[in-house]
Amino acid sequence: MGEAARAIKAAVTIPAIIFPEGPGSLTPDADAVLFMSLLNSRNLDLVIRTHARSATTVQRMALEAIPMGYLVIAPGMRVGEVGAVDPVPRDDLSGAIGYALAAELLGMRFVYLEAGSGAPEPVPAEMVRAVRGAIHIPLIVGGGIRSGADAGALLRAGADILVTGTITEEEGLSTSFDSILEEVKRARRS
Amino acid sequence: MGEAARAIKAAVTIPAIIFPEGPGSLTPDADAVLFMSLLNSRNLDLVIRTHARSATTVQRMALEAIPMGYLVIAPGMRVGEVGAVDPVPRDDLSGAIGYALAAELLGMRFVYLEAGSGAPEPVPAEMVRAVRGAIHIPLIVGGGIRSGADAGALLRAGADILVTGTITEEEGLSTSFDSILEEVKRARRS
Repeated sequence: MGEAARAIKAAVTIPAIIFPEGPGSLTPDADAVLFMSLLNSRNLDLVIRTHARSATTVQRMALEAIPMGYLVIAPGMRVGEVGAVDPVPRDDLSGAIGYALAAELLGMRFVYLEAGSGAPEPVPAEMVRAVRGAIHIPLIVGGGIRSGADAGALLRAGADILVTGTITEEEGLSTSFDSILEEVKRARRS
Repeated sequence: MGEAARAIKAAVTIPAIIFPEGPGSLTPDADAVLFMSLLNSRNLDLVIRTHARSATTVQRMALEAIPMGYLVIAPGMRVGEVGAVDPVPRDDLSGAIGYALAAELLGMRFVYLEAGSGAPEPVPAEMVRAVRGAIHIPLIVGGGIRSGADAGALLRAGADILVTGTITEEEGLSTSFDSILEEVKRARRS
């Protein structure tokens, strides 16, 4: 992770933020870490206990901790399994709102709705709209975003940040990725 | 709770803040609620899930949510049992620091070290000093505070707020309570 952070920092001028798998992901070579609580996990380690064990390390490395509520929506895919998650059903808008608003009221600065890497479909746009209307902090949406149409629907519903991964891992910088990027640029202009 | 809040609001001009036992403690007649996560509980409801179920109610009642990390230190007494807590051992300074700093990095605005109502001794002053030195948010200490000597030691160790209960329930506004109050006034002057 240190090597990756140094390579990225050498190539770009924007901050490098760690999306951690665990304490082993921490490196002083990055600028910040998403200090994320997996809100709907049954594993206390992923909700709060790993945080307690690694907080002093974060501080010693002088990493900015960015508190984020990470909420897995069905199907959840691998993160849902590894994370021992009770995924929020895709039609449970009030469930998603409850967790997202609780994260905000607990002091977290971001909420991330995650359908899971490689999910057949992204988080429903209707759910993104409902959560966006209930909270006042930035909303991140990831999982299953494979096309400009997917991205456009989520952005119009109020997503502030989109996360993609599988599509670039599988196809590289393809026309699908270009069309997603085009939608993001369009949203920034509007 | 509504009745109690109205009576208190009628008698004093400072804000009335709810220390909730659960969602049933919420009332729009108070000004704010300690939106507290029981950090070292094994019961997910007390860590995050009740919060998700009640966040919209808090917002609808226009209560200010004050995010607070609530950490039970041994012996923990009844809150330790009811809260299904793994209490932090009294000599585990780094354990207490870890939870308290994690609460701060997650965005919470207060940390509360609780020895439990009626505890034979308060949280050790050494632990209060260690936690105070590690965090940057106000530190509340409660449980087992029975004398001015107890209060003075905790305040000198860096506690920002002391919570008493049992002593006034058992003795009313006694000389012991007066001596606690005297220590608080002394700390405010210094």
